[in-house]
Amino acid sequence: MSMWARVAARRLRGAPTKLLWETSPFGYQPLREAVADHLQLARGVRCSWEQVAIVTGVQEALDLAARIFLQPGDRVCVEDPGYVGATRLLEAYGARITGMSVDSEGAVVPRGSVRDVRLAYVTPAHQFPLGVTMSIARRLALLDWARRTDALIFEDDYDSEYRYSGRPIPALQGLDTRGSVIFAGTFSKVLFPSLRLGYLVVPSDLVERIAAVKSLSTRHAPVLEQAILCDFMVEGHFMRHLRRMREVYAERVSVLLDYGRERLGGLLDISPVEAGLQTVGWLPGTVSDVRAAREAAQFDVEVVPLSIYSRKRLEREGLQLGFAAVDPPELRRGVEDLERVLTALTRNTSITPGARRNSTKSRRPRDA
Amino acid sequence: MSMWARVAARRLRGAPTKLLWETSPFGYQPLREAVADHLQLARGVRCSWEQVAIVTGVQEALDLAARIFLQPGDRVCVEDPGYVGATRLLEAYGARITGMSVDSEGAVVPRGSVRDVRLAYVTPAHQFPLGVTMSIARRLALLDWARRTDALIFEDDYDSEYRYSGRPIPALQGLDTRGSVIFAGTFSKVLFPSLRLGYLVVPSDLVERIAAVKSLSTRHAPVLEQAILCDFMVEGHFMRHLRRMREVYAERVSVLLDYGRERLGGLLDISPVEAGLQTVGWLPGTVSDVRAAREAAQFDVEVVPLSIYSRKRLEREGLQLGFAAVDPPELRRGVEDLERVLTALTRNTSITPGARRNSTKSRRPRDA
Repeated sequence: MSMWARVAARRLRGAPTKLLWETSPFGYQPLREAVADHLQLARGVRCSWEQVAIVTGVQEALDLAARIFLQPGDRVCVEDPGYVGATRLLEAYGARITGMSVDSEGAVVPRGSVRDVRLAYVTPAHQFPLGVTMSIARRLALLDWARRTDALIFEDDYDSEYRYSGRPIPALQGLDTRGSVIFAGTFSKVLFPSLRLGYLVVPSDLVERIAAVKSLSTRHAPVLEQAILCDFMVEGHFMRHLRRMREVYAERVSVLLDYGRERLGGLLDISPVEAGLQTVGWLPGTVSDVRAAREAAQFDVEVVPLSIYSRKRLEREGLQLGFAAVDPPELRRGVEDLERVLTALTRNTSITPGARRNSTKSRRPRDA
Repeated sequence: MSMWARVAARRLRGAPTKLLWETSPFGYQPLREAVADHLQLARGVRCSWEQVAIVTGVQEALDLAARIFLQPGDRVCVEDPGYVGATRLLEAYGARITGMSVDSEGAVVPRGSVRDVRLAYVTPAHQFPLGVTMSIARRLALLDWARRTDALIFEDDYDSEYRYSGRPIPALQGLDTRGSVIFAGTFSKVLFPSLRLGYLVVPSDLVERIAAVKSLSTRHAPVLEQAILCDFMVEGHFMRHLRRMREVYAERVSVLLDYGRERLGGLLDISPVEAGLQTVGWLPGTVSDVRAAREAAQFDVEVVPLSIYSRKRLEREGLQLGFAAVDPPELRRGVEDLERVLTALTRNTSITPGARRNSTKSRRPRDA
């Protein structure tokens, strides 16, 4: 934040009048260039800066895509369990929703019986909420399906900036050769939630239509913020921030996994995670995730029941665990609290929270 | 700008973490309070801060209203001539558009034969593009019509912050007693176009629905910008800026009117203007406004033909003239160039622009 403030102060002091008048719908050109460069290197996205639109976040990116592509009654495939904010938005446009199940390779390609799909919404880099990274084979299969069925793919890459293990796999967008993938991500998760700057990468032939729709709805992102972010990236602060936070978060995830394994055996089976800011823990069959989350909240431990992300009954219930905003001592205390809660729930005994903790709420896992 | 930079630097240096996490859909509470206070004093808007949503501008405000209230096929009344950005957006939601003509008292209340109107979009403070301020009698008649027909009114108050003459008339919103007016305005026109912060004042019973829709589309406005704007208002810089710019603009409009009367008699009849940043000049019947604007552009004089704002053939064509972004010497030169252009057009002779001027483009009249 102090670096952000310094960059901002310098940028605002010297802001040329031109910057105050700049109103291009896709945003501030130098930032679009910086984003294109970054996505090329970090995510294997293939694009020119002209294809990059600066938006408030993934939510607006999906909203713009929905405005252009969806007619009421159109079929859209979404991951199940998946990101509810996307499903709700798509439903608001009158889409008929079909779930895609998620296995260890990511979202499962829809069967041939699922016809007339206009759009598929996926989170391949780090499936929301399960945390799976989509395999390269699955990515190619999904692209092949899109080619055969003439569907568009919306690739939501909301938090894969932080990778702890495994080799980075190129974005679907970078593997696609037909201009059928729309790619979106956000800076609000890697920098700070209240920022509201993200990006949308669109196939070249859609640039004009998306610009027209952006101009009719929110016109363009605020320019001074964009200029500050651009300086922050060009001067290397952004990459330094990512490297530093990656170390911090890598430590946190390993504390959660190691201490979880030590204390939560038989109670919560925490999945290892290759990237992102959250993972999941699977519950024993007898424990309701909604109940577990409610009891954990009594200890000010904020976990999210996976069942709220699903339109069907889950085979196994679980909890989404955000680890990024909680330091190691707090994470250990959280694990201990979960142990207490889950032990009581499995034995069907009551829990005495004792003195409530000071608020140690973990960050909401999704607000992109 | 230097004051904005100073306020921003201070605010960012001391930004508490809380500010980085703030993600309420309606925006930063202290700014909502400051806006509510300001609108009460400056525009006679009656609202509590809870009814104020911070948005990117009037365009997004109208977009949010359309999402909630419009179904494809719904009838919407708009002023004609009127703001094309509104009409296009409403048409994108499938609205059937009916024009309201505009006379010297503002938009004319729709006739009884115009039935089933869901929404009327109006600019009472300073009609766009004609510049008329709606009379109090017409305001009351419009509210009465809305009551009888159960229509909602969207009041776009995009630039009336600057008033040069006449008594301020309370906003429709402040005269309404039934919660049937949605009021919107923007800071981008009074501060700087690239800012993208505006406001929407909604009836209390709609707060939750609008918040839900805002959250699904762009989530919330960027918070640091909101905090900076809030400080700027609370510390009095905003009112000082308004007072100072009102003087600057008042001088400019009087230069335009006086010098225009002196040089453009019989060629362009420039309307006096009580408020805002632009006015209109009426052409002789023989001159096409599109042609006149095109010829004026050869001299780098940017004027907008009124006919582009209308869905029907205008009885008399004219030019929209933005005076706010052009200093007096430049305004005088612009009047002289218009004299040359219009003299040639009325006499049907050709024009020699001679050496082109340096770019002296006036600000686009509408980008709220």
